[in-house]
Amino acid sequence: MELRLINKKGYNDNRIIQVGDVEIGGSQLVVMAGPCAIEGKEQIFSTAEMVKKAGGKILRGGAFKPRTSPYSFQGLGEEGLELLKEAGAYYQLPVISEVMDTREVEVVAQYVDILQIGARNMQNYSLLREVGRANKPVMLKRGLSATVEDWLLAAEYIAAGGNQDIILCERGIRTFETYTRNTLDLSVVPIVKNLTSLPIIVDPSHGTGRRELVIPMAKAALAAGADGIMVEIHPNPCEALSDGPQSLEFPDFEDLMMEVHKLQEVLK
Amino acid sequence: MELRLINKKGYNDNRIIQVGDVEIGGSQLVVMAGPCAIEGKEQIFSTAEMVKKAGGKILRGGAFKPRTSPYSFQGLGEEGLELLKEAGAYYQLPVISEVMDTREVEVVAQYVDILQIGARNMQNYSLLREVGRANKPVMLKRGLSATVEDWLLAAEYIAAGGNQDIILCERGIRTFETYTRNTLDLSVVPIVKNLTSLPIIVDPSHGTGRRELVIPMAKAALAAGADGIMVEIHPNPCEALSDGPQSLEFPDFEDLMMEVHKLQEVLK
Amino acid sequence: MELRLINKKGYNDNRIIQVGDVEIGGSQLVVMAGPCAIEGKEQIFSTAEMVKKAGGKILRGGAFKPRTSPYSFQGLGEEGLELLKEAGAYYQLPVISEVMDTREVEVVAQYVDILQIGARNMQNYSLLREVGRANKPVMLKRGLSATVEDWLLAAEYIAAGGNQDIILCERGIRTFETYTRNTLDLSVVPIVKNLTSLPIIVDPSHGTGRRELVIPMAKAALAAGADGIMVEIHPNPCEALSDGPQSLEFPDFEDLMMEVHKLQEVLK
Amino acid sequence: MELRLINKKGYNDNRIIQVGDVEIGGSQLVVMAGPCAIEGKEQIFSTAEMVKKAGGKILRGGAFKPRTSPYSFQGLGEEGLELLKEAGAYYQLPVISEVMDTREVEVVAQYVDILQIGARNMQNYSLLREVGRANKPVMLKRGLSATVEDWLLAAEYIAAGGNQDIILCERGIRTFETYTRNTLDLSVVPIVKNLTSLPIIVDPSHGTGRRELVIPMAKAALAAGADGIMVEIHPNPCEALSDGPQSLEFPDFEDLMMEVHKLQEVLK
Repeated sequence: MELRLINKKGYNDNRIIQVGDVEIGGSQLVVMAGPCAIEGKEQIFSTAEMVKKAGGKILRGGAFKPRTSPYSFQGLGEEGLELLKEAGAYYQLPVISEVMDTREVEVVAQYVDILQIGARNMQNYSLLREVGRANKPVMLKRGLSATVEDWLLAAEYIAAGGNQDIILCERGIRTFETYTRNTLDLSVVPIVKNLTSLPIIVDPSHGTGRRELVIPMAKAALAAGADGIMVEIHPNPCEALSDGPQSLEFPDFEDLMMEVHKLQEVLK
Repeated sequence: MELRLINKKGYNDNRIIQVGDVEIGGSQLVVMAGPCAIEGKEQIFSTAEMVKKAGGKILRGGAFKPRTSPYSFQGLGEEGLELLKEAGAYYQLPVISEVMDTREVEVVAQYVDILQIGARNMQNYSLLREVGRANKPVMLKRGLSATVEDWLLAAEYIAAGGNQDIILCERGIRTFETYTRNTLDLSVVPIVKNLTSLPIIVDPSHGTGRRELVIPMAKAALAAGADGIMVEIHPNPCEALSDGPQSLEFPDFEDLMMEVHKLQEVLK
Repeated sequence: MELRLINKKGYNDNRIIQVGDVEIGGSQLVVMAGPCAIEGKEQIFSTAEMVKKAGGKILRGGAFKPRTSPYSFQGLGEEGLELLKEAGAYYQLPVISEVMDTREVEVVAQYVDILQIGARNMQNYSLLREVGRANKPVMLKRGLSATVEDWLLAAEYIAAGGNQDIILCERGIRTFETYTRNTLDLSVVPIVKNLTSLPIIVDPSHGTGRRELVIPMAKAALAAGADGIMVEIHPNPCEALSDGPQSLEFPDFEDLMMEVHKLQEVLK
Repeated sequence: MELRLINKKGYNDNRIIQVGDVEIGGSQLVVMAGPCAIEGKEQIFSTAEMVKKAGGKILRGGAFKPRTSPYSFQGLGEEGLELLKEAGAYYQLPVISEVMDTREVEVVAQYVDILQIGARNMQNYSLLREVGRANKPVMLKRGLSATVEDWLLAAEYIAAGGNQDIILCERGIRTFETYTRNTLDLSVVPIVKNLTSLPIIVDPSHGTGRRELVIPMAKAALAAGADGIMVEIHPNPCEALSDGPQSLEFPDFEDLMMEVHKLQEVLK
């Protein structure tokens, strides 16, 4: 595969991406957390408080949601972004949210610190070019059936647009296995580290689709060399409008953060 | 899966889509053919002449190309659409081409008779909604890792936008097999016929990635009950700027059309 | 892939395998039919009568069943083979059944005309070598995750044992799609015809797992160039001890045979 | 899925399997290491010495090799087992090797401490029943396209035969990704721990097929909760008769063991 911009140029060529006070790709493991979908002020503020208190670094929350069915909850849109920004500002957490449409890149970029490209849009090349022109870090999730090559070339599209602040995110691929929602492919963590200069984050929530697997797979991701993890948490997963079964409750999230701190010492 | 608009409402609920003189989903098998990418006037005109002469009904040609690498040929853009429209008008063939960006739907719709959504954009919901507002038939290719449910719900997005002139197109899925470029999943042909009122076309060129498999798989698709096929042909596949190995040469295309005519008698 | 024995040596190198009066790989399309599992005398005799009457050529029936769970019905064993042989003799139909254990090859070979190697044993190399020493044709089903290369090399194991009367059988592969039990990969039909001299049969019953898809996929298989099909039929699928949902009822089987006869004229 | 014997009966129902001095499933992480294929006395003795010295607990080595092609090196057979047993005895390491044929279970069991069932034979039910009658622990590798359910039910076959000393081993599954030989599915580690009482080992050598990925994936496996790992090592991987590209050199193995010791303290 022909990588010209994001390929590793030497043993120490590791890009560190600065987002507010947070360094992604540096010596600290970074935890991004928040609800799948922003549902209202109380939900996002209580979640942000939890993230901050437990040591999470970035607040996530979906406002424009890519739902398989047109009849499912589609997110609060710009109103959701407004709430996310407020919550992030209040708790001093940089925020990340997904952008799905070339025409919305500019407006989403006004609210968030990191633009997220979701798995379903990984090969939406118009959108990749557009975020390549944005002046914000971009997190590029791996597509459900994207090979490593497809994925890195998609990142190269963003870089070719002029934006090299790219974070890769593994979130599981489609296989024959049905026990898990997707199959989390952790081998890409060392592969990405060997082939590119970019940081990589792992999302064990989408990667497994089952709450009870999130903590062990988060630990595995960090042990494999990931720069951080992204997890879904919710004050009350049973009532979540999206992805409840894979969202951690707050006490589980605190357990997860303790495990991360333990691993931090051995790994970095 | 919850289908409200495209689901089959009765035994004879088969939507016929009128495109110029051509009926898709009716009693005639429809062959769509043309080059992967429009490369210039001579190429598209000579191909259109061949399509017309051999009995093809729709002229295909890519102008905006979704290429895996940003460094590959990306298509001629609007200039290509202009050439496609001219060639179609000259040989009295309706034309189809892919649209990749919400902002380009309006302009592409001025040139083509059918808007194509490519496999990589099958879950680009903004784009689906946008073509749902267009006043043109839409051909929706199945995503590389889309289940039948994902695919039909994507079609439902278009229908929910107000446009029910939707043609489904199977073009192969990603599996572990590497001998072929993709695995053509013909079982979706009777499945789509059972679950929806929509016509279905099969693309054995992308579905196999190998020229020598195109004719047998085209025959298989029609025997399974497909309403037609879409194939890539090129005056000189060796020099094609895209997808040469899976493009038929003109004499092969004439052979294919003879096989289609033979099957037409037994099948419809 | 290195094929030494089963590879096609020239344009007309097509091995025809003689089984009683039946030629597999010749100018007639061959239909093999019968129950998934032999359950008793009445069941196998009534099925054999139906197969014969409708024009089927080979009677299938499982006696040693490879079941996913040790607590499922495991087949009647040698008693089942005895019944199968009787029914075949009575209705003048050669019979085929699966062998699962190296130690049972000799005994199974006494009852059947064709030894079947099931998908789960496709890479059971000891068993392949053992049937390579048997003096009976062997039908080798493709493994659930076998590439074309794995499969053809497995056939090469049998041939290397001294037995070149090998029939290949495509029966669906494992993919992410869950609507069907497996994904029937018909592209292997022309691939096998191009690369080897061996005949190929397609099993749309296991390949789809759904009765309503069997007839269209059987037709597709033959149009792709298969030498025949193998289908599961049962006098009363609802009460079948195994694979009821994919078994055809007798009237459906008669419809299928009519379709086969129509295609025979156009295809061969 | 219906598990009757291997299912977890309570929070602390973790089966510890005693092999000589080694406990598998207990508080110590277990490393099994050795060559893919036993090639000769010097090779297996020098490898055993390395394993012992670095802190490995079990010596692995293939004598009967399931090779995709009949023309590849098939292993030394019983002569290889003899060498393996000698090397194990000399360095006080229990040994493990694969058995492929029901007729060979008894003889292999005379040489080894753990019988291995390879991925290709995971659904060879005759073989599972046979090792179920053996009086030796069995390590059951996951099949290339086996779901968790298929795999656990295969283990249930062994247990139903009377042998509950079963170790599960994840070694990668077949997916569309081609950069790695297989896709190592670490999510099965916590799944197996939740659903069964059995210990689980992970094989990152087959799971990735690439030497440079073995150490990070071994660490990830242990962080996910695996009871140990199995890796291929070779005194001179370039000259290995099988699986050279995924075999660790001795210095890499020493690095791996250091990482394991560091993780041991945090994890167990």
